[in-house]
Amino acid sequence: MTIQPAPLLIVGSIAFDDLDMPSGEHRDVLGGAATYSSLAASLLGVGARVIGIVGDDFPKGHLDELRKRGVDTEGVLRAPGRTFRWHGRYSPDLASRTTLDTQLNVFADFSPRIPAAYEESPFVLLGNIHPKLQVSVLEQTRRPKLVAADTMGFWIQGEPAALAEMLRRIDLLVINDEEARELSGIHNLVKAARDIRKRGPRLLIIKRGEFGALLFDDAGPFLVPAYPLEEVLDPTGAGDSFAGGLMGYIASRREASPAVIRKAMYFAAALGSFCVEGVGPSRLLAIGRSDVAARIASFAKLVDHGGDLSLAG
Amino acid sequence: MTIQPAPLLIVGSIAFDDLDMPSGEHRDVLGGAATYSSLAASLLGVGARVIGIVGDDFPKGHLDELRKRGVDTEGVLRAPGRTFRWHGRYSPDLASRTTLDTQLNVFADFSPRIPAAYEESPFVLLGNIHPKLQVSVLEQTRRPKLVAADTMGFWIQGEPAALAEMLRRIDLLVINDEEARELSGIHNLVKAARDIRKRGPRLLIIKRGEFGALLFDDAGPFLVPAYPLEEVLDPTGAGDSFAGGLMGYIASRREASPAVIRKAMYFAAALGSFCVEGVGPSRLLAIGRSDVAARIASFAKLVDHGGDLSLAG
Repeated sequence: MTIQPAPLLIVGSIAFDDLDMPSGEHRDVLGGAATYSSLAASLLGVGARVIGIVGDDFPKGHLDELRKRGVDTEGVLRAPGRTFRWHGRYSPDLASRTTLDTQLNVFADFSPRIPAAYEESPFVLLGNIHPKLQVSVLEQTRRPKLVAADTMGFWIQGEPAALAEMLRRIDLLVINDEEARELSGIHNLVKAARDIRKRGPRLLIIKRGEFGALLFDDAGPFLVPAYPLEEVLDPTGAGDSFAGGLMGYIASRREASPAVIRKAMYFAAALGSFCVEGVGPSRLLAIGRSDVAARIASFAKLVDHGGDLSLAG
Repeated sequence: MTIQPAPLLIVGSIAFDDLDMPSGEHRDVLGGAATYSSLAASLLGVGARVIGIVGDDFPKGHLDELRKRGVDTEGVLRAPGRTFRWHGRYSPDLASRTTLDTQLNVFADFSPRIPAAYEESPFVLLGNIHPKLQVSVLEQTRRPKLVAADTMGFWIQGEPAALAEMLRRIDLLVINDEEARELSGIHNLVKAARDIRKRGPRLLIIKRGEFGALLFDDAGPFLVPAYPLEEVLDPTGAGDSFAGGLMGYIASRREASPAVIRKAMYFAAALGSFCVEGVGPSRLLAIGRSDVAARIASFAKLVDHGGDLSLAG
């Protein structure tokens, strides 16, 4: 019996990125959390419903590209003005990056409105926007089965009350290790995870870039590695591809059991690994389901210890 | 049928460590690569044969402690003078350390002599000493089945010719990511691994501290994670415990097939995880086989994705 994928609502930025990479400079690259997440989520036929905003400088062709991949762009508002723009420079080893410029543009007055047809979205991914907007999106939906959110240091430092309110309303928080430490004020990730889960989300995933990601739930910690890649071109969007892939897999299975979430993390890690192999979302736009299946098989081999780890004698 | 463990020869330092930890200062702590490796290896009844040197200030009780754990200390030479001494200070997050002082003492003139009874040692672990001494140990053994070695930046920079000779003679190199990058001159670890394996060792394990370790062999990359621990007291010796545990497991199984090496990495990672839970080798001296079996079960759960990762539909 084939399970029909459930709808996934994604709110987040759609952007132009200017990327200064060690390999060269790239301008006006299609970017933003909602872009990466929705592309990753849509590989399993989920048809992510994107809520976002672009300016009148945003080429129609970009939205066509998303739609061609099955993304539902009905909720993408086009407003007078310029599209959100981010300019970043990466270190030679790509392990860190510096923001050179952020122009909110039309994103500055973004107030997400959920179309009536989207109110019944059983799965929701709240990309990294103001926690008040994340809560406002939630208030426009009807009892979703699983709500995931991302956030960042800017909100952790600047909007602690709004962030606390958001945390109380979500099921799953997906952040990186630095953010987990900043949010909890605790360096040790096991203790940080316990602290954060007490604030609301019963599930926490801590992303660790090239070292994979850790899930903390009632079933105990679970780790998905990152795949050791030979060519990493651009880490931009890898975390958003991970989050989108995760929720896309869960929506495709229509459930968020511990077992499904663990498998979803492999799908998510595979999508993250593809994302970094191209500049911007180019690889995500090029791959198909069979590519992802092959990559997941490589992941499975990477951790296949043969089953029996008991000590003889 | 119970497999009788094969002998494992270990050469390396035996030391006093002065440790400045965020939690306090510890003086005259029993340390050295051979100490940690032999304790880890001996948990499976291998009875590691240690080749090393101590001064006349070295308490007999320390060697008794090793012997009580099954370590064979016949090859430990006692020489006039003081024992090798290292003084290090750790960063508050324990992620890095600074060497404040190194006193070679009796180790300065150490020229390892293998007792006749040890010449037939099918498994050999060459701890991090001068690559010329590592080769000299090898020349005193008779056709071992698997030879593993460690090294460090000091030899990579200062003794490239001797190091190249050592690499040509070993089967398995166990180093950390920084050393792999330094040795190969390549940042990407997949490419660095390929370069290093061309220099001699057909097997390479790259240790990544709290992020686990990667094996590169003809069967493709394999990853063992580090266990997310709540209390990390002292990382000193974790890498040596890993290497000793690895070779101890392989010796206990009397073979180094790809399947055995993968299981050995879990045993190794478990020993490394115990090591950091106590100051010096205190935890290694306290645990038994059932503790290790329980920790390995936790590791297995950490990566248990449920088996079927195929994409439905």
